Amino acid sequence: MLAGSWLLLPFLCAPALAQNSLVLTDTVSNVHVPDFSLSASDLGFEGEWSVSRQTLRGGRQEGVDKIVIQTEAVTIAVLPTRGMSIQEVRCGRTRVGWDSPSAEIVHPALIDLESRNGLGWLEGFNEAMVRCGLEFAGHPGEDEFVDNTGNTARMNLTLHGRIGNLPAARVELLIDEAQPHRIRLRGTVFERSFYGPKLRLDAEVSIVPGESSWRVADKVTNVGAAPQEFQLIYHGNYGSPLLGEGSRLVVPARTLAPMNAKAENAIDGFETYLGPTEGFVEEVFLIEPYAAADGTTMALLVAPGGEFATSVRWRVDELPYFTQWKNTAAKADGYVTGMEPGTGFPFNRKLERAHGRVPKLAPGESRSFTLDYAFHSGPQVDSAEARVRSIQAERPTERSGVPD
Amino acid sequence: MLAGSWLLLPFLCAPALAQNSLVLTDTVSNVHVPDFSLSASDLGFEGEWSVSRQTLRGGRQEGVDKIVIQTEAVTIAVLPTRGMSIQEVRCGRTRVGWDSPSAEIVHPALIDLESRNGLGWLEGFNEAMVRCGLEFAGHPGEDEFVDNTGNTARMNLTLHGRIGNLPAARVELLIDEAQPHRIRLRGTVFERSFYGPKLRLDAEVSIVPGESSWRVADKVTNVGAAPQEFQLIYHGNYGSPLLGEGSRLVVPARTLAPMNAKAENAIDGFETYLGPTEGFVEEVFLIEPYAAADGTTMALLVAPGGEFATSVRWRVDELPYFTQWKNTAAKADGYVTGMEPGTGFPFNRKLERAHGRVPKLAPGESRSFTLDYAFHSGPQVDSAEARVRSIQAERPTERSGVPD
Amino acid sequence: MLAGSWLLLPFLCAPALAQNSLVLTDTVSNVHVPDFSLSASDLGFEGEWSVSRQTLRGGRQEGVDKIVIQTEAVTIAVLPTRGMSIQEVRCGRTRVGWDSPSAEIVHPALIDLESRNGLGWLEGFNEAMVRCGLEFAGHPGEDEFVDNTGNTARMNLTLHGRIGNLPAARVELLIDEAQPHRIRLRGTVFERSFYGPKLRLDAEVSIVPGESSWRVADKVTNVGAAPQEFQLIYHGNYGSPLLGEGSRLVVPARTLAPMNAKAENAIDGFETYLGPTEGFVEEVFLIEPYAAADGTTMALLVAPGGEFATSVRWRVDELPYFTQWKNTAAKADGYVTGMEPGTGFPFNRKLERAHGRVPKLAPGESRSFTLDYAFHSGPQVDSAEARVRSIQAERPTERSGVPD
Repeated sequence: MLAGSWLLLPFLCAPALAQNSLVLTDTVSNVHVPDFSLSASDLGFEGEWSVSRQTLRGGRQEGVDKIVIQTEAVTIAVLPTRGMSIQEVRCGRTRVGWDSPSAEIVHPALIDLESRNGLGWLEGFNEAMVRCGLEFAGHPGEDEFVDNTGNTARMNLTLHGRIGNLPAARVELLIDEAQPHRIRLRGTVFERSFYGPKLRLDAEVSIVPGESSWRVADKVTNVGAAPQEFQLIYHGNYGSPLLGEGSRLVVPARTLAPMNAKAENAIDGFETYLGPTEGFVEEVFLIEPYAAADGTTMALLVAPGGEFATSVRWRVDELPYFTQWKNTAAKADGYVTGMEPGTGFPFNRKLERAHGRVPKLAPGESRSFTLDYAFHSGPQVDSAEARVRSIQAERPTERSGVPD
Repeated sequence: MLAGSWLLLPFLCAPALAQNSLVLTDTVSNVHVPDFSLSASDLGFEGEWSVSRQTLRGGRQEGVDKIVIQTEAVTIAVLPTRGMSIQEVRCGRTRVGWDSPSAEIVHPALIDLESRNGLGWLEGFNEAMVRCGLEFAGHPGEDEFVDNTGNTARMNLTLHGRIGNLPAARVELLIDEAQPHRIRLRGTVFERSFYGPKLRLDAEVSIVPGESSWRVADKVTNVGAAPQEFQLIYHGNYGSPLLGEGSRLVVPARTLAPMNAKAENAIDGFETYLGPTEGFVEEVFLIEPYAAADGTTMALLVAPGGEFATSVRWRVDELPYFTQWKNTAAKADGYVTGMEPGTGFPFNRKLERAHGRVPKLAPGESRSFTLDYAFHSGPQVDSAEARVRSIQAERPTERSGVPD
Repeated sequence: MLAGSWLLLPFLCAPALAQNSLVLTDTVSNVHVPDFSLSASDLGFEGEWSVSRQTLRGGRQEGVDKIVIQTEAVTIAVLPTRGMSIQEVRCGRTRVGWDSPSAEIVHPALIDLESRNGLGWLEGFNEAMVRCGLEFAGHPGEDEFVDNTGNTARMNLTLHGRIGNLPAARVELLIDEAQPHRIRLRGTVFERSFYGPKLRLDAEVSIVPGESSWRVADKVTNVGAAPQEFQLIYHGNYGSPLLGEGSRLVVPARTLAPMNAKAENAIDGFETYLGPTEGFVEEVFLIEPYAAADGTTMALLVAPGGEFATSVRWRVDELPYFTQWKNTAAKADGYVTGMEPGTGFPFNRKLERAHGRVPKLAPGESRSFTLDYAFHSGPQVDSAEARVRSIQAERPTERSGVPD
C-alpha cells in the first residue's frame, strides 16, 4: 500500500527504499539521505503525524543529524550522530527533558571523553535520555581487568562510556503495516575496537500515533569471538516543569542505599524534591526495584501539584537496578533529576564487577531491553501512582548504608 | 537605510536579516549562512570595503569558517570555528602575523588538547592573535583546586586552555549606522560543562574603514550559579617583517621578571631581538606595565630600521599583566615574538592562583576587555614610541628574579 | 595531448588543472574537488581503467575522502583523509586485505589516539596497508628523550603514531605522459607541531595499467630546523583468502627473534599459519632480511594450496627491518597477518632508540621509501618463491631470544 507513495520528490536521491521502510543512513552502501520532512498523508497513512530529518549546522553542532517524529500527543527528537540519544521529548505543551548548562548539541568529533580527567562526557550531556555504556558506564577511573588474551590489563575508564558519542552506522525508519502503525526509528551503533570490545547496539525509539508514550527497545550483541562484559544505564533526565519543589519520585523499592556519605544524610527525603537550590550538591540513591507478577516495574516522577507526571516501565530481569539522581541545583547549573534503570549502578566498573553487577555476553549473544516511557496528566497521574504502589504492594524496603 | 540593500542574491537562503546586522551563524535557530562576498556598495555604503565568508575545504581545515573584512588600510581574517581567533592581519602590503611551523588551519575536531602530554594546542597554533583561556590558560600540568561543591579536585590542565579550539555558537556581522560605520564581527563562544565552568565569551573584532587599526572588544560572563575562576591571555604573535634582527619592544614596565633561568640570563637585552637563530630556545619576560592617566597602556613592536611598527593598547585594570614571548628561532621552527596582555602570566594555574593572578567571576558577573591594535608607518612610528615613553614617564622598572 | 580532455563536465568546478595532473585537494589554495568518476578514454588514454573520488557519508565515515584507481588487474582504494592509507586492494576477484572487527572507516576526528591508554588507533585499524609513524611508531607508553631545546622530555606515545589519522593537505592525481602511463596518486601529509616534530610525508600510490602490482613510493622530509627522529612501519595486512590454514610466509631472514615469550614458544612454526583459531593470541616475529645483490629484498605470503600469493619488495637500506605479525584469531576478532617492513621494530620508541633503530633526519633531509607490492597466481607463485629463496641463497638465519 505504501510502496508508491514513498517515491516522493524529497527522496528522488534516496538510494534505498522498501515497503514501509526507509534507510536514512547506511555506511556500508554509503547511503545518507539529505534533509526531509514527510507527513503521514505523504506516506499514505491516516492521522496527523510527521517525520523529519535535519542536519544541524554551525558551531559545535555542525553535522549532527536530528530526526524528529511528531505525533499529536508526543514529539520526540533523536540524534543518530550522538548514539541514538533522545534529545528532547514534548508531550503536548509539556517538555519532558531539562535545561543543561551544556546547552549546545555537540558533535562527537568535538567531545574528548578523556578530558577533564575522564569527565569530558559532561560537555555534551543535555539529552532527555542518553544511554551510558556499552563497554563501561559509570564513574571514571582506572579499572583492572582480565582482557581477551587472559592477561591482566589496566585502563582508565571515562565517565559513562562511549555509546552516547558514537554516530550510528545505520539508521532506518519503519512504519508498521499493521494497526496501530507504530513509527519506529532504528539505529545501529557499533562500539568495537581491534583487541577491544566488539559490541553492537540496535537501538529503536518508537511511538504509536495518538498515544502519550514512547518506547525504547534495544538489543546489545557481542559480535566478537570472546566473552565480553558490558554495562548499560538508561540515563533519563527531567527538569522543569516535571521537576519542581514538591515533585515526588514513586518507585517500588526492594532495597535502597545512598551512593555516598552526603546522600546517606539525605536518604529520608529521597522521594521528594527541592526547588532549584544554589550550591546543592548531587545526591544519588541506589535502588533494586520490586517487580509486578509480569516481571515489569515502574518509576514515576510526579510534578508539583500532581497534575502531570512521567514514568518509565521496564523488566527487572533486563535491568535489575535503578539509580535516582537528584541534582536540584540552581537553574543555571542544571536543575535536574535522573531516573536511571540499568544493568548496574554508576560506580566505576571495578567496583561494579566486585559486586557482580557487570554482565557478560558470550560470543554472538544478545540481550534485549525494552523501556516504556509515558506522560500522564489529570486522573492518569493517580492511576499511574496506584500502579507503582501495587507493585510495591506494601512490601518492605531494605535500607543499607553506602556500599563498600 | 540598509534594510533593503541587504536583501541581495547571496542571502536568499540567509534566514536572519535585520537592519545593519546579519546573523551568520546561530545554533539555536540552526542558521548557518553559506559562503558570500559583499562589498560596501552592495550594502548601501560608501567606501571601498568588503566582507566575505568562506568555508575552508580539504585536509585538516575541512569545515573551518573564515570571515574576512577587507578595508583599504586593513584586512583581517577571523576564524569563528577556532574561537574567533584572528588568523591573519594585513596592513597594506605588510603582514601583521607570522609563519608557524603548524602552518595548516586545523579544525578543532582534529586537535587533541590532551595529546603530547597537554601540548596538543600547539598543533593548531598559527594565528596572528589567539585567546588563551577561559577556564585556564598557561602551562599544562596538574592543578589542585576547590571545585563548585567545595571539594578538592585535581585536573590536568592543557596548554592555554580550550577557547581557541571551540567553535562559536553565534556569529553576527554588524555595521554601525552612525559614522564612521565601524564594521563589527561578533561571535559568542561557550566554554561550559555540566559540573564544570559555565563561561561565555562575547568576542568582537572590528575595524573602522580607513583606519590602520583594529579593535578586539570582548566580554566574559559567568553564566553559572557559582563563582568561577577564569584566565585570559591575548596571545598576539608577530614574525617577519615586523620581527627581524634589531626589532625593538617598547613597553612601559613597572616590573620586569624572567619566567625561568634561561630568560634570567638574557634579561638585559629583553627589549631587542635577534634575527632567526637556529637552536634559539624561547625567552619569556613577565611585565606589569604602567598606565597613563586614562588607565591605558601600550606595547609597541618596532620593525628593524624603524619604518613601521605595530602596537596594542589596553586598560591595565582590565589586563594588568603583559608577557613578552621571544622565540627568535630558525624560520622553519617559528620565528616569532608574542605581545600578550593578560589577566595573569602563563604559568600553570596552580602557580598563578598562589600569586593572586586568577580572577573570579560571581554568578552572572561579566568583565570586558578592549584591545586597540594598530599599524604605524613613517612618522607615526616615532609618535607611537613617544606615546609609550610618555606612559613610562621615566618612572623606574623594578626588576626581580624568576618567580617562585 | 591530454590538456583538452581533462576539461570535462565533472571538473567544471575544479580550480586547478594541468597537463596530466589534477589537483584534488590543496589546502593552501582551498581546492577540494567534488566527487567524480573518469575513465581512461575520458582522459584521452587507451585502456580500460578509471579513477573515481567519493566522499563517504554517514556514521563515523562522514567526510572521509576515498579515491579508487581501477585497472583491469588491480583496484586500489586510497584514503587521503586517513593519511593516504590503502584501504583496499583487489586483484581480479581476490581481495588483498582483511576483515577487521573495527570495520567502519572512521574519520580521524572521531579517533582519540590517547584513548584506551594509548590504543585508540585500533578503533580505525582496518586498512590493507597503513603507515605507522612518523614521530613515533610501535607500542604506546612513556618515552624519555632529549627534545629540540636540549632538555630531557617525557611524553606518552600512542600506538603506531599519528600519520594514519592525519588528513592529507594536498592530493594530486598524475598520469605519466610516457608509456606505460603509470597512474599516480600523490598526497602530502604533515605531521608537525610548534615545539614538536616538523615532518612531511609525500606519499605516492601508483599502478601501471595491466600489471598485477602496485607501488608505494614515499618521501619523508624534516622540514624543521633541528634534527628530528622518525619511525616508519609499512603495516600491510592480509586476511582470507590469502591467509588460511597452511598459508606460508617466505622471507629471506638473516636474523629472527620473537617479540615476547609467547612468540618464543611458537618460533619454530613462524613460517606457517593456522586457520582462524578462537582465543589465539598474537605472535610477533622480528626479522632482519637478507638483500639481493641489487639491495632489494622480498617477503611473500602464499595462500593455502599455493595457487596465489602476494608479495612486497623493498630496499633493505631504506627499511632494514621486517616484522611478521601473526594474528590467526577467530574471524570475528580479526583473522590477519601483517608483513611490515620498517625503519625498526614495533617496540616502544624508548626501546627502539636504545637498540639504535630510530633514524634521525637533519634539517631539510629527506629519505625515500619504495615498496613494490604484487599479486601472483598460477606459475607466478613458484617464480616469486624462487626469487625469495635466491635472496636467502641458503645463507643461515641467526636466531635469538626476546630482545631486552
